Amino acid sequence: MSKEITSRAQDYSQWYNDLVIKGGLADYSAVRGCMVIKPYGYSIWEKIQRTLDDMFKATGHVNAYFPLFIPKSFLSKEAAHVEGFAKECAVVTHYRLKNSPDGKGIIVDPDAKLEEELIVRPTSETIIWNTYKDWITSYRDLPLLINQWANVVRWEMRTRLFLRTAEFLWQEGHTAHATKEEAVEETMKMLGVYADFAEQWMAIPVIKGYKTANERFAGAEDTYCIEALMQDGKALQAGTSHFLGQNFAKAFDVKFVTKENKSEFVWATSWGVSTRLIGALIMAHSDDKGLILPPKLAPIQVVIVPIYKTEEQLATINEKATEIKKSLEAKGISVKYDNDDKQKPGWKFAEYEMKGVPIRIAMGPRDIENGTVEIARRDTGEKHTYSFTDLTTKVEHLLEQIQLNIFQKALDYRDEHITRTDTWEEFVDVLENKTGFVSAHWDGTSETELKIKEKTKATIRCIELNAHAEEGKCILTGNPSHKRVLFAKAY
Amino acid sequence: MSKEITSRAQDYSQWYNDLVIKGGLADYSAVRGCMVIKPYGYSIWEKIQRTLDDMFKATGHVNAYFPLFIPKSFLSKEAAHVEGFAKECAVVTHYRLKNSPDGKGIIVDPDAKLEEELIVRPTSETIIWNTYKDWITSYRDLPLLINQWANVVRWEMRTRLFLRTAEFLWQEGHTAHATKEEAVEETMKMLGVYADFAEQWMAIPVIKGYKTANERFAGAEDTYCIEALMQDGKALQAGTSHFLGQNFAKAFDVKFVTKENKSEFVWATSWGVSTRLIGALIMAHSDDKGLILPPKLAPIQVVIVPIYKTEEQLATINEKATEIKKSLEAKGISVKYDNDDKQKPGWKFAEYEMKGVPIRIAMGPRDIENGTVEIARRDTGEKHTYSFTDLTTKVEHLLEQIQLNIFQKALDYRDEHITRTDTWEEFVDVLENKTGFVSAHWDGTSETELKIKEKTKATIRCIELNAHAEEGKCILTGNPSHKRVLFAKAY
Repeated sequence: MSKEITSRAQDYSQWYNDLVIKGGLADYSAVRGCMVIKPYGYSIWEKIQRTLDDMFKATGHVNAYFPLFIPKSFLSKEAAHVEGFAKECAVVTHYRLKNSPDGKGIIVDPDAKLEEELIVRPTSETIIWNTYKDWITSYRDLPLLINQWANVVRWEMRTRLFLRTAEFLWQEGHTAHATKEEAVEETMKMLGVYADFAEQWMAIPVIKGYKTANERFAGAEDTYCIEALMQDGKALQAGTSHFLGQNFAKAFDVKFVTKENKSEFVWATSWGVSTRLIGALIMAHSDDKGLILPPKLAPIQVVIVPIYKTEEQLATINEKATEIKKSLEAKGISVKYDNDDKQKPGWKFAEYEMKGVPIRIAMGPRDIENGTVEIARRDTGEKHTYSFTDLTTKVEHLLEQIQLNIFQKALDYRDEHITRTDTWEEFVDVLENKTGFVSAHWDGTSETELKIKEKTKATIRCIELNAHAEEGKCILTGNPSHKRVLFAKAY
Repeated sequence: MSKEITSRAQDYSQWYNDLVIKGGLADYSAVRGCMVIKPYGYSIWEKIQRTLDDMFKATGHVNAYFPLFIPKSFLSKEAAHVEGFAKECAVVTHYRLKNSPDGKGIIVDPDAKLEEELIVRPTSETIIWNTYKDWITSYRDLPLLINQWANVVRWEMRTRLFLRTAEFLWQEGHTAHATKEEAVEETMKMLGVYADFAEQWMAIPVIKGYKTANERFAGAEDTYCIEALMQDGKALQAGTSHFLGQNFAKAFDVKFVTKENKSEFVWATSWGVSTRLIGALIMAHSDDKGLILPPKLAPIQVVIVPIYKTEEQLATINEKATEIKKSLEAKGISVKYDNDDKQKPGWKFAEYEMKGVPIRIAMGPRDIENGTVEIARRDTGEKHTYSFTDLTTKVEHLLEQIQLNIFQKALDYRDEHITRTDTWEEFVDVLENKTGFVSAHWDGTSETELKIKEKTKATIRCIELNAHAEEGKCILTGNPSHKRVLFAKAY
C-alpha cells in the first residue's frame, strides 16, 4: 500500500483519513458506520483509558457495568431525553434466527419477536437511573460515584473514523447526590479532570465553558464542555459534563430519606469522553509527514534504528542498542528497536514519522566508535548528536520538551484563532477565511442562534466559564447582550 | 436488607445467589437475562482483566476492537459455526424510533428497516476473519496475534448471575498463522496461560483437556479446555482455546503468499474467558458466612476495624491504624480502614466476612497499649495476636499463605472427587451421590456419549491431556476403549 499522504493544504479531510488508515489506527468495517480500531490505534485508547481511569479513581469514583440493552419504554420516561436520543438508534426486535425454508442461508425467526423492543444503548442514563432506584433509599447511600467503560451506538448518517461512528467506545460517569450544590460541584470537578487530561496528556489546549439550550445534552439542566481547535480552524467538543438536576430522579422515581427524615429526589450528573478523542489527537498536532503524538500517549516513545552494511556492524550495534533500550525501559519509557533486515533505514524513518513516534535514535558503526547516537525529534524534525553519557536522562528531558512544545504550538495556534468582532461583516469574513473561534455578542435567544447557524454554519461552541460581563449588541440582531460567546464551525 | 445467607447444605443454588447479591457483586437488571455488575464485583473483574491482559501481552499479543454487529449473512459462511451460534441471538432489524401517532410513547419506525439484519456478536470469528482478509496477504503479515476485550450476547433461556447471562463481558483472542504447527502451538500456549491464571491467581485447580466432537466449539477442529470442580461436585468449564484449522480462512477466503511464493489458506485459533470466571471464583472457595476471595484477586486484601468506646480511644487507634495502612499500602497491599461510627464492630466483622476480605485486623485500646493487633484469617477463621514489629512482613506472608491454603483446599476436594470406575452401577451411583468427576472408559462414539447424558445428565467434560493409553471397555456399551475420559455433571 502506498504510504503517501495527501497534504493538509490539498485536502484536509483526505489528509485526516490517510493518517488514520495509513498510520494503522483504524479501518472501515463491513458494518455501515462501524470502524475497526487497529492495534496501534487501540494502544492509544488503552493509554487514554488507563490515565483517565486513574484520575477517576483518584477523585473517588468506582467502575461498574450496566446492560447493553435499554427497554424501549425507558427512553420515553424523560421527555427531553427521548427527543434527543430515540431518533437514530439500533433496535433489537427479535431473539432468534432459523434456517431459511428454501435452504438458502438463515432468516429471522418470526416467532421470536420480543414483546418490547430493546434499544442498543446510545447513552445509559435511563437504565442506570432505573437501577439506582433500587440502590438508593437513604442519604447514607449517597453520593454514588460510578463510572462505566462501554460501547455505545448512535445510528449516525454521516460517519468519519473516530470522529463520528455508529458504534464508539467511551466512558460515562453517572453520579447521584443529596444536594444540588454537591451535584454542581461534581459536574465542575469532572470538567476540570477532562481539561487537565486534554492539556497535560493530549497536549491540546481547551476552553472550558457551558452550552446554550440548543446544544445542551438531552435531559440536562446544564451542559459544560471543553472545546478544542483543530488545524483547519474548526472546533471540536472533546468532552462534556452534565448537571442533570432532578430530571432523571423524577423520571425514574428515585427518592432518598434525608438526615432530617424527609423524602427528596436525588440530584444527578453524567459526564463522558469517547474514542473521538483520538480523532482530536490526530488533528491537533500531526503534519503532512504523518502523525505527531504527544509522548505521554505515544504507544512507542522511542524507536532505535540501526544503520549498517555488514553483519558484524549490526552485531555491534545490536549490543549497544539493546543496552540503551533496557536503560530507557527501566525509566518507564517504551522503546522499539527495529533491526528488521527486510527494510532499509530510509523506509523505517518514513514509517515511524508516519506513526508519530516522538523520538528516533539512529546508530551506525561510526556512532559506536564515537560513543554517540543521532536523535531526531518528530515534532520539530531537528537532529542532534548526543554522547552515550547520561543518554537516558537526555531522552527523558527531550520527551518532556516535546510534550510541552506540541502543547505550546497548539496553544499559539488556538490563541491566534480567537477573534473578537463586533460587526456582522467581519464575523462572516473571519468564519469563512481566517477560521477559528469568534468571540462575539449574542442576544441570548435560540432563534438568533439558529439564524446565525443557517447563515454561516457556525454554532455557539460555548459560553466561556471565565467570560466577564460586558455590555454589547448582538452580532446579528443588534439586541442588547451582556457577555460574549464563542462561535465556530465545528466537527 | 437482611444479610443472612442460605447455607450450602440447605440450598446450594440459593446460597450462590445470596453471595452474589448480598455480597454486592451483581444484581438482576430490568432487561431479561442481563445483569448489572456492581462496583465490588466489577473490581474483581478489573483485577482479572489487568492480570490476563499482562499475560497476553507478555506472550506477544496486542489488543484491537471490532464491531459489535455482525451482518446476518456472515454467520452463514462457516457451516458448523452458524449451527452453533445463529440460534439464540439478538437481532437488530431497524435503526430508528419515532413518536407514536397516538401520542403515547415511541414506536419503531417501519420506514427504518435495515436491508440486512445485524446480529449482536455472540462471538467474533466471522467479523474478524472478514477483516483479516484485508490485513493478510503475505507470510510477512503473520502471525497476527490479536485479542479483544468486549461484551457479547447469547440469548440464553435460563440465566444465572455470572454463570450464564444473555450479555457478558469477555476477552476473545483471534490469531492467524502460516502453519498448522504454529496454530496448534498457540492453542496450547493460551490453554497454558488460562491454567496458570486459574491456579495461581484464582486459586482454582483445573484439569487441562480437550473436548469430544459433541462439545466442541462450533467451527473448531479441536477445542481445548480447563475444567474446574465446584463445591457441589459439579464441573465448570473455566476457559477454552480452539484450534480452528483453516475453516474460517476458507469461509472468508483468507489466503497468504508463502515464502516459497505459493498461495495458501491461513491457520487460525481463538480463545476466551469471561465474567463467568467470577462465578467460578465464588463457588470454588466461599462458605456459609460469605465470600472467600483469593488475596491476589481480592479488591480489599486487608480491612482494619477499630474497637473503641470513647472518642479519645478512637483518636489513638486512628493514628496507629493510619500508620499501619500506609505501610501496608507501600507494599502494594490494598487496605480499607473502616472507622465509620454508624456501625458496630460486630456488624463490620460480619460484613467483611460476607465480602470475603482475606485479612481482618482489629485494634482496641488495650492492643495499642500492648503494641499488638488481632488478626483474623477469612479462610480458616483463625485469630492470632501479633506485635507491631514487622507487621507488614507478617501480613504479606499471611496473604501468601491464604492464597496457597485455599488453592490446596480446593485441590484436595477436587482430587477426592475424581473417581475411577469400571461398572455402570458405580458410575451412576458416584454421579448421583458422591458427585465430582468420574474417570471411565467410553467407546468414542457421539451416540454413546448422548445416551449417557440422557441417563445420567453427565457429559464428557474432557479427555485429559495427560491421559495415558489404557485398554478397557466402555462403561455403557462394553465396546473397546483405549483411554479413560472425565465425566461430570456441569454448569
